[in-house]
This record gives sequence, structure tokens and C-alpha cells, in this order.
Amino acid sequence: MFQAPETTSARAEIPHVVIVGGGFAGLWAARGLARAAVRITLIDRGNHHLFQPLLYQVATAGLSAPDIAAPLRHILRRQRNVEVRMATVAAIEPGDKRLRLADGETLGFDYLLLATGATHAYFGNDAWAAHAPGLKTLDDALFLRRRLLTAFERAEAEVDPGQRAAWLDFAIVGGGPTGVELAGTLAEIARHTLRDEFRHIEPATARVRLIEAGPRVLPSFPERLSERARRQLERLGVEVLTDAPVTGIDAEGCRLGERLVPARTVVWAAGVAASPLARTLGVPLDRAGRVPVQPDLSVAAHPGIFVAGDLATVAQEDGRTVPGVAPAAKQMGRHVALTIRARLDGRRGKPFRYRDFGNLATIGRGAAVVDFGRLKFSGMLAWWFWLVAHVFFLIGFRNRLTVLLNWTWAYWTWQRGARIILGGGDDKR
Amino acid sequence: MFQAPETTSARAEIPHVVIVGGGFAGLWAARGLARAAVRITLIDRGNHHLFQPLLYQVATAGLSAPDIAAPLRHILRRQRNVEVRMATVAAIEPGDKRLRLADGETLGFDYLLLATGATHAYFGNDAWAAHAPGLKTLDDALFLRRRLLTAFERAEAEVDPGQRAAWLDFAIVGGGPTGVELAGTLAEIARHTLRDEFRHIEPATARVRLIEAGPRVLPSFPERLSERARRQLERLGVEVLTDAPVTGIDAEGCRLGERLVPARTVVWAAGVAASPLARTLGVPLDRAGRVPVQPDLSVAAHPGIFVAGDLATVAQEDGRTVPGVAPAAKQMGRHVALTIRARLDGRRGKPFRYRDFGNLATIGRGAAVVDFGRLKFSGMLAWWFWLVAHVFFLIGFRNRLTVLLNWTWAYWTWQRGARIILGGGDDKR
Repeated sequence: MFQAPETTSARAEIPHVVIVGGGFAGLWAARGLARAAVRITLIDRGNHHLFQPLLYQVATAGLSAPDIAAPLRHILRRQRNVEVRMATVAAIEPGDKRLRLADGETLGFDYLLLATGATHAYFGNDAWAAHAPGLKTLDDALFLRRRLLTAFERAEAEVDPGQRAAWLDFAIVGGGPTGVELAGTLAEIARHTLRDEFRHIEPATARVRLIEAGPRVLPSFPERLSERARRQLERLGVEVLTDAPVTGIDAEGCRLGERLVPARTVVWAAGVAASPLARTLGVPLDRAGRVPVQPDLSVAAHPGIFVAGDLATVAQEDGRTVPGVAPAAKQMGRHVALTIRARLDGRRGKPFRYRDFGNLATIGRGAAVVDFGRLKFSGMLAWWFWLVAHVFFLIGFRNRLTVLLNWTWAYWTWQRGARIILGGGDDKR
Repeated sequence: MFQAPETTSARAEIPHVVIVGGGFAGLWAARGLARAAVRITLIDRGNHHLFQPLLYQVATAGLSAPDIAAPLRHILRRQRNVEVRMATVAAIEPGDKRLRLADGETLGFDYLLLATGATHAYFGNDAWAAHAPGLKTLDDALFLRRRLLTAFERAEAEVDPGQRAAWLDFAIVGGGPTGVELAGTLAEIARHTLRDEFRHIEPATARVRLIEAGPRVLPSFPERLSERARRQLERLGVEVLTDAPVTGIDAEGCRLGERLVPARTVVWAAGVAASPLARTLGVPLDRAGRVPVQPDLSVAAHPGIFVAGDLATVAQEDGRTVPGVAPAAKQMGRHVALTIRARLDGRRGKPFRYRDFGNLATIGRGAAVVDFGRLKFSGMLAWWFWLVAHVFFLIGFRNRLTVLLNWTWAYWTWQRGARIILGGGDDKR
């Protein structure tokens, strides 16, 4: 049934659009082609679209994995021109207009959208990965949840006071939105959620350190909001270290040159690199492995191939690149759909223009920062704004309801509903 | 801090009760000792109490793992005489009144309750395990969920019609409550939940077979209800095979002597065996590895050691053994607490008497059987009764709310909220 289009004459007449990646860019592109005379194959390694902005809440036991994910098939079930395929793409063969799946099968395409996003990167220090796991997928989130919750269990069981304290030393590397969210939430868990539950340790004595290489946290925000974020973090109990580039990570903690920041549990929120699939395109990539694209988001050498989302580098008119955030990915996905429709009609696509609706980041209970250009605010109001926006953008009525219910419950009780340690057979620390 | 009681003189005066296992028996025993002058250590391999009766719903993507589990520490946080310890017990040393943890530490006790339950057993055919995973823990449930959902994905991607059909052949081995629940729910998923989502297969053509060695499903129920359960299963689309003892399970399916029941996906719901920790007690066990106990639930050779829940064999006055169900485990746990309190007061404990409040099993949407002795019913009313009882007995206000919300949503939409494939790195089929 998955023959190359040229072998089925009836199908060959309908252009075949292959979308790799069911994130924001891929899903919005598929939806944007709902009424186009194309047949679409959406390929993803997993079976679900993930609402990545709330992934840190799964890692910190506030939400369950299914609360922030929905099966791609289910989202697209009524769009009859799409078929969803759970598979891993091994390589693109742009010259032959086809791609090869990990199981050896090949799939031809007329148009291709590559939207496989980014993964975490250790800047060439792959040995750090074992000590400082990152957060990109639901499996990453469940792994982190296990690490964070298990650290308190180990501290409770430890007889030696030095060892016990070591289990209560946490470090988050990277002061971007994910690092800030993780640090703030972890401090809240230690100070409030776990209160009264242990008999030998006082979880509130846990030290949560946020380590940022640059001069301030949330560097994509205006300086004033970075400063407010820092103060809000400190109020929640996080120690913020800036101008502190990490030079090493091992079982004892993070090295900042000569200095050791002790931490038995380290989380990596510092660097991302583009998905390695981009390399098989055979075009020059930028330093982070992303694909520089034309103004219409196509690849210079291969006009039928588009790249969108975190995998693409798009220069804006002011020279800055489009940020790697969910709204940008959705806009790019939608734009690729428009361009394909234009080309099918014999027109040329327009250049992509990123509309920046503003930037928000949450820090912890009652603490967030919002930047709408002229309108900037922080604190409780910003937090409520963040909350409403995130519930609104979640896919699926049920997901919104369960997330709201979980948050309401968490707000009143300071509890977190998903404090369940799963798996762990492979994490022998 | 975890010294044997004799080394800390102040603590030595307070008797130390160690409970191994945080299931129904262990948790109810701990609660029953809330006002006793003892210090309690509750040890469990995981960090949570699991509401096992709804485990099949996690496996069939109806609920999230945290919906049916709660952290043991949290449940017991206000009971100051308990400490919860996440650890694996390697062996009991009954003569020395102590137990050894997997990390080498030893723990002394004055009273011990062993309540580690049962695990699935393949009657000596351990090679079947790879083809027919069982369902006892949350990790088992997530593994099964992945297998069941992935089978439909594989069928969709398969070009060969024979292979495609093979991916749609499911078999559940064992016609007890778990097997019946799994079979009924899986048939519902194939017929309703996945409707319209695939382009190359018709999920409703999936064949779900329930294979029972004995003459009828739900053998612990009266014959009339077994017959009704069978009819309800068949109405949901399940093929029920009785008098069909499985003699082999391999990649092609289940062997019944000469006959092959084809199934690419097999679930084991047939046999359980007691947790292997019982063997280290050094007392005679029954055929399933359970510990025969005295009328007060203590072990004959070791009056300070009790066994409760699925790990114990308790003969009732009518000669039948107490069934391995949640209410029995709770009653036994509570009874052990009473016996320990009696002994602390210098009295003897009373014999345990199981109060059978009735037996319920669900089959699928609108289908269940209820047996209250003289009152027996099935169908929609039984299903509502089952539903209310299970929500009522769930631990935790939040869990009840999220489960109710999920069920209401599922009832109206035929959807299942947790259809997210997690993990899978180790399952290469």
C-alpha cells in the first residue's frame, strides 16, 4: 500500500506531501493542507503530538504524560487526505525525491517538510549525558521525574550526613525558560510538596542551584524581566549562578573551572542541537546543525523540500533569527502549507514573516514574566496569564479539563498528582 | 539512623514493626497501628500504593499511571509512628529477627508483616514470558499498553495482507477477572475507539480471543454469571475459548495441543505465583509458593512474623481458602494490626475471619457481573455498580476526580485518554 507514487497511476496524479515530525510545525502544516488536492503522509517516531511547553510539568510530577499529549491519528482522523505513520526516518535522498525508513522501506514524495525539531546537545561533551539528562520527550520527562523523586528517597535512607546532604544538592544547567521552570518547581517541591513526609531529612533543606553561563537568566527577555525572574527564583529558594559556564559534569556535581558546585542530581537545560536527520539532506548546516532555508522556508538546492520549526534557521528582516518557540513552529508549518498550495496553483509562495505575539515564561507558583513589547509585567498576574494561555493552547478538550483539574488541586493543596516513580530498571545510580 | 533496635536504647523500648509491601494488606496494617505504641517501617520497592483493580485500565489506555497510584509517604505523612522506605528486601532472617535489604543493610524487627503479594507465573514455561507479558505493576501496564497500541500501528504499515491480519490477532490467556476485563476493553478499542483513524486497516476486524483452560470464564463466580459474562463478551466482539489449556506460546500465537490459535500479540492473565521473598522464610510453602499461616495470620514456626494478602494461604472454616482479592487483603492487614496490638497488651489475637461482601467483575462498557450471595445481577446495572464502587475505594480525592472525569469523557466519546506510547527502547518486535 506504500508504493512509490509512480507505480500507482491513479495515485500518481495527486501530489504526495510527506511531513516528517508531528510537532507543532508538522501538525500545523498537515492541517493547513486539509483542503489541498494532495495526499499527505505524516511520519513520526512516536504515536503522539506533544505539547512541549508543559513537558517540565511531567518531569516535576505535576502532570501525567497523557495530559499533555494526544495521538496524532486521533487529531487528524477526520482529515481524509492524511495518513499517519509511526516510523523512524533513516535518511532523506533529495535527488531521488524519496526517503528511507529505518526498516528499509522507501517512500517517494513530491513535497517534503522536515520538521523533526531539536534534541539536547552537550557541545561535544557526551560524557556529561549520563550525569545530566535533558528534557525533550515524554520518556525524558519520566526519566527525570524518577531521578528527582528518587534523590529524596536516597537521602532519607542515607546514614552518613555528608552523603545525605549530597542527595539533596540539585543543579539545573541552563537559565533559559526550561531551566527556570525546572528550578522554580523543584524548589517548590522541596519546600512545600514533600513537607511532613520524611522522617530523617528535611526536604526544605535541599539546595537547588540554577547555573547559567551568560550574565542573566531568560536571556531572550528584556533585562528588567530577567532581573525580576531572578528575584522571583530566589524568593522560591533557588540559588541563581550567572556568568558561570560549566566546564565539566561528573558524579560529584558541576565544575566551573576550578570551582565545584556539588550536586548529586543534575539536569541539563542548556543546549539543543538540530535533529541529526538534517545531515542527510546534503546541504550546509549552521553551527547548531540547523538548516538555513530560503525566505519561503524551502531548501535552496531542493525547492520541493521545506524545513520548519526548531530544525530551520530563518533570518528575519532585522537580521535576527526566528526563535525556537512553539508559536514560531506553528506559523512556519502553516506557511509551508500555504506555499505548497500556491505552487500547486502555479503561483510562487510568499516569504515567511514571523509574527511575535510576545514571550512568556513561568518560574513557579505565582511567579512568571510576560513580555508583549510595550507591555511587560511579572508576578502573580503574569502567572495567571501564563496559565490561561497554556490551557487554551493545549490540544483536546479532555486534556484541558484534566490539566485544569490537576492545577486547581495543586494550587489549593500544594500537592503534585503524578509523584509516581515509573521504570528505573536501567538507572542504577 | 537505621540501626537495629537493640543498639539504640531509647528506641529499643518501643517495639519495631516492619511491614514489607505497600499494597492493600501492608497499607491497611500500617493504618491499623496508627495508635499503637510501636514504631513502624513500611518498605516497598516502589514509592507508591497501587490501586490494582484498575491496573487493566492503564494497560488499555483508559487511565494514566498516576490516576491509580499515590505516594505511600503522602498517604501516611500524618501518621508519625511510620517511616516509609523505598528499598528492595533481599531476604528474611527469621531466627535473628531481622531482614536484609538488597543494598546489604540489615534491619531488625520485633514484628514482621510480609505482604509482597504475587507476580505472574508461567507454570515453569518461562520462555512464554517474552511472547505473553503479564500485568502486575504500573511498568507492566505501560509495557502492555505499548504492545497493544503498537500492534495496530504495525498492521497499518504492513504491505503483506497475511502479516497485516496477523498484527490484528490478539489473544488473552486466562479467563479470570483480569483476562475478561482486558479482552472486553480491547474489543471495544478495536471496534470503537480507533474508528476512522487508520487508512489501510479496519481496526474493527481485529480478532480478540480469550483463552481459558477451564470450562468457563470467571470461575470464582456462580455458573449463571459466568454464562452471562461469556455472552456479554461475545456481544462486545470477543471470541471466548473454554476448555482450552494452552500448551505453548510463541511468536505465531498460542498452541492448544495440535491446534494453533494465531496471535501476534498475547497477554498473560492466567497464573500468579507468590512473591519469591517467601522462600527465604524457611517454612513450607504451598504449590503456588504462598505461605500457609495460623488462624491469626502468623507463621507457625515464628510467632512474630505475619503474612497477609496474596502471599498468604488462609484456610476458612468451610475449608476454602480466602480469595486473592483486594478486600481480603485489606481485612488481613487490619487483622494483623489488631493481633499485634492484642499481643502488646498481653492478650492473644483472635482468629482471622474473612467477611465476603460480594464479588464484582467488569467486562466492558455497560457490561459487568455482581454476586452478592443471594443478590446476583449483570449488565448495565452491574456495570454502574462496579463503577461507583471502584471510584469510591480509590485512594485520594484527586484520583477520584480525575478518574471520574476520564470515565465520563470516555463514556460520551468512546475515546480513551491515555493512548500514548511510552518507552519501548527494549521491545524490538
